[in-house]
Formats: sequence, C-alpha cells, structure tokens
Amino acid sequence: MYTQADLKKLVNKAILNLSYNEEAEKLNDPVKYILSIGGKRLRPVLALMACNLYDDKIDEAVIPATGLEVFHNFTLVHDDIMDHAPVRRNFPTVHSKWNLNQAVLSGDVMAFIANECFLQTPPKYLLKVFRVFNKAAIEVCVGQQLDIDFEKATIVSHEEYLRMIELKTAALLAASAKIGSIIGGADDKDSDLLYEFGRNLGLAFQIQDDLLDIYGDVKVFGKIVGGDIISNKKTFMLVKALEIASIEQAKQLHEQFALKEFDPEIKVKKVVDLYDQLNIKNISERLATDYINTAFSLLEKIGVINERKTELVNIANSLIGRDS
Amino acid sequence: MYTQADLKKLVNKAILNLSYNEEAEKLNDPVKYILSIGGKRLRPVLALMACNLYDDKIDEAVIPATGLEVFHNFTLVHDDIMDHAPVRRNFPTVHSKWNLNQAVLSGDVMAFIANECFLQTPPKYLLKVFRVFNKAAIEVCVGQQLDIDFEKATIVSHEEYLRMIELKTAALLAASAKIGSIIGGADDKDSDLLYEFGRNLGLAFQIQDDLLDIYGDVKVFGKIVGGDIISNKKTFMLVKALEIASIEQAKQLHEQFALKEFDPEIKVKKVVDLYDQLNIKNISERLATDYINTAFSLLEKIGVINERKTELVNIANSLIGRDS
Repeated sequence: MYTQADLKKLVNKAILNLSYNEEAEKLNDPVKYILSIGGKRLRPVLALMACNLYDDKIDEAVIPATGLEVFHNFTLVHDDIMDHAPVRRNFPTVHSKWNLNQAVLSGDVMAFIANECFLQTPPKYLLKVFRVFNKAAIEVCVGQQLDIDFEKATIVSHEEYLRMIELKTAALLAASAKIGSIIGGADDKDSDLLYEFGRNLGLAFQIQDDLLDIYGDVKVFGKIVGGDIISNKKTFMLVKALEIASIEQAKQLHEQFALKEFDPEIKVKKVVDLYDQLNIKNISERLATDYINTAFSLLEKIGVINERKTELVNIANSLIGRDS
Repeated sequence: MYTQADLKKLVNKAILNLSYNEEAEKLNDPVKYILSIGGKRLRPVLALMACNLYDDKIDEAVIPATGLEVFHNFTLVHDDIMDHAPVRRNFPTVHSKWNLNQAVLSGDVMAFIANECFLQTPPKYLLKVFRVFNKAAIEVCVGQQLDIDFEKATIVSHEEYLRMIELKTAALLAASAKIGSIIGGADDKDSDLLYEFGRNLGLAFQIQDDLLDIYGDVKVFGKIVGGDIISNKKTFMLVKALEIASIEQAKQLHEQFALKEFDPEIKVKKVVDLYDQLNIKNISERLATDYINTAFSLLEKIGVINERKTELVNIANSLIGRDS
C-alpha cells in the first residue's frame, strides 16, 4: 500500500512531467508557478488511495489524478481573481504576480491541460471517469456562483451554506475518490460509496478549515488570527451564529460585519466572544466530526479488507486534526 | 444533403436544448445570453457538413458540433475581458452587461458545458474526437497569448502573424471539419484532409475579416470604417505594410499608430492611403484567395463524389465574399 507521502511524491513528479504546448512560453509560466507552490495534493492523493484499495498497481491512475490537481489549481487562479486575493499559500496570486489577463488566460489553458490528463484514462474507463469529473467541474462553478451570491446576501441559512461548500469543495473530493476507485476496478456500488466518502470528507474538511482560521493558529502564533472575520467572509460559524443568536447578539454580529473602519484585533475578539457565547466552536466541531464519522461508516461498507483502508482512515483523521 | 441554413437551424435548436445545472441561475444567464446573440455558427456548421460528406444521417454529430460553438463562445467571453471590448455582435459583452467576475465564472462553466457535449460523441469515436478538440482548445489559448504578446511587440513578421491566426482562429475550424468527418465515418486520410481544408479556410477567413474592417463596410456605409486602425489592432495588412514599407512610409505608419489623440477619420484615411501606396489590399486578397484555392484542392482529394462537396464549396466561397 502506498502512504500519503508516497502518493504526494508520485503526484508531484507527474506534475513536473506534464507536457505543455511551448509555443507561447508566457502562457505556461503562471501554470507552472501555481502548480509549483505546493498544497497537499489532496484530490489526486485521495484518488490514488481509492485506486489502491482495489489494485496494487496504480500507474494508470496517476495522470488522471494529476488532472484533478490541475483542475483544482485552475479554479484557484480564477477564484483569486474574483476574490481580489493578493496571496495564496504565502505566495503572490497569479493575477498579482502577472496581471488580470494573464490569470484569465493561463487559468483557461489549465482547464484543457486537465482534460488532456483525463484523456489518458485507460480507454475502458474513459467515458465513466470523464463524466464524473465533468459533473464535478460544473458543480464547482455552481458552488463558486453561490459563494459569490451569498457574499452579497444578508441572510444565508446553514443548510444553504453547507450546500454551497458541498458543491464548491466536496464535489471534487467526492469525484476524486470515485474516479480513483473506477480506475482501480471497483464495482458501481463501491465507487458510489467512495463518492459519498469523499463528499463527507470534503464537508468536514471545509468546516475544519473555517474553524482553523480562528482557532487553528492559536497553537502557532499564540493568538487568534481570524482572517475570515477581518475580511467579512461568510463561514459556517458565522452563518450558524446568526441563525441561533438572540436579536441582541445578531445585532452585535451584524454591527461588527458592517464596520467600515476597525481595529482588526478588536473586531476579531468581539466576534469570537459572540461565537463563544453561542457555543459555535463546539457546534462546528461536532458537525465536522459527524461528517467524518459518516465517512468512516461508508468506508466500512466497502468490499475490501480493512487493512487496505488504513491510508484513507489516516487521511480522514488528519483532515480534522486527529492524530491517527 | 443539408444546406448551410438547415444546419444553422439544427445547431440553434441544439443550443436551445442544452441542459444546465440550474441550481445557481445567475451562472447560466450570461451563457444563454452569449449563445443567443447569434453569429454564423460556422464551426458546428462546418463540422456537420464534414459529417454529411460521409453520412446522410448527422444526428450523432449535432451535440459534439454544438460543443464547438459553446467552446468558441467561451473564448469570446474571456477574450472580450482581455480586450476591454464593450460590444460583441452589436450587443454588450458579458463583462459589460454583468461584471468581470461573472464573465470569468460564466465563461469557465462554458468550457465544461462544451466538454459535456463532446462526452456525447458516439463512444467508438469519443477518444479520437476529444483529442482533436482538446488539442485545438490549447492551440486557441496559445494563439490568444501570441495575440496579446504581439499587441505589445514593435516588430511582428507576417509569418508570425499568420501563425498566430492559425492558432487562434484556424485551429478550431480545422478541428471542427475533422471532428465532423470522424463522426461521419471518414478514414484517417480524409479526416486529415478535412483538417487541412478547415485550416486553410480559417486563415482565409481571418485575412478576409481584417480586410472587411477597412473595405467591407464601404458598400454598406459608403465610407471606410476602420475600427482596427482606430484601436491600433495588429492585422495582416498592418504587419505586411510595415514589412514592405520604405523607411519613410514605415515612419508615417508608426506615427499614426503612436498618436495619443487623433481624429479617427483622418487617421484611418492616412493609414489606408499608405496601404494603397503599398498595394496591401491586393496582397491580402491574393493571400486569402491562395488559401481558399488550397482548401479547394484539398477538397478535391477527398474520397467522396463531387456532388456531396457542394455545400463545403459554397461555404468556402461565401467566407471570402464570392458568390457561388
């Protein structure tokens, strides 16, 4: 069985070996850049683990799995344009380092480089795999649209928020696990279970990510950072807090998020105090744990011996910060 | 045999029947808008004509052919962002009617709607067709990059310019003809000939388009319009003129294109006068005719009776403004 570290290495090697149409160098520079500044390679790693459940040989899944990473990075380049984000993974975003037009165009070509990867799926699985990928690709766009819509909306229910992250984040993780399993030779029942496994993992992962923005850095920096609060980003925590707040608490939350000028540290403290009054941290952690537990119960139903599932259990635990 | 008008109708119907993920309406509004504001549907029509060369039934080619149109419109939405173009086909561009973010995101989803169409290719041709499409899609991006690069370059040779339009425009027309023929059941020799036919057609078409900007509207408006000259766009005519101009003529051309403030009519007149001194209209028309003639000689080599080729001959003639 391949470990997460083995698979990340395989994917990084495949990324370095991607072939480019080099006739206009400038087109590919941002592609190589965004693909080189790291990340966990979560989607291809998940795909390869799902493949490895069924097959000791995973070679045929490496390029399609890499396509998932290329697609994911395409969405990052364009999302960063839409969010006016200056920094990604501690590096300048493509539109900041180059310019808007370059970010649009180099982003675009990544969609077709991703296609190129999927076209290298073993022919007998090509249609099935490409359909799963493409459905997820459209869902990611729909999720991004809902995210944009929600930023402008005053009231978003926690169900709407969860549906948005289901589309924007979980759909691609779900597709990744399913695609890997298909190439590994899983039957439809198992590949559907792996889709659901990935979906639950994705939901847990996004809620955890929202939590980490407030509570994650405490261990590292000794204080709460709260970038999402400072930038008025809607998170599961905010949406849930507004739902269960008293009229007075909701008024205070709205006030904080309506401030034009503020001391970031004071704003973060006031919002987190309200979250604490409303028990938001526990509610969020509980929900993330529920999703992870659902993911585990789905994994149990999968028709391979438990020993082969170890790496998927490990990655699921690590995503919600559990040592496994 | 289907006529150009029949095929355009078929394509327009297929466009209206495209299926959308409707969960975020706002995402699809610009897609439906850009696909509704017309255009010749040249790429799908060409694909269907190529299919119809080999098969009286063209049903199986309609959806993949529609994918070519969706892809083409995706490039228009994003190119218009990059060019800051306010108007397309006499309608506001997507980023003007909505905004930049909506144009980026709705453009993106069109790439995957196009994929969806190609995934409906008959399975036995799927891999072949998708490879031809995807290679062209990457070439279109490379062509757009070269176009951007050339706008900033002081010297561009006519060979470089032709290579740029070969990638940006001709590659997709070539792929369209090839894809249609593959689905129609053509052998490799014929489908390669149709690729070359489409490529030559595309080159002729783009040169003709450059010519029409100056000389085309004379018939309609009674005067030269010259939008490309006013906006300093590099065209075959400009690139060629600078190549063959005397030092004095080149100086005058550069002067006109360096003006910060100018009377559009005077600028256009001065540039066209220089073009006339250099015989640029004839040189350009001659080149477009050469490409069309090459296209016809390629068509002759194709292994079907001449009667079936009539519509392709007609469309080629109409593209360079010949009555057939």
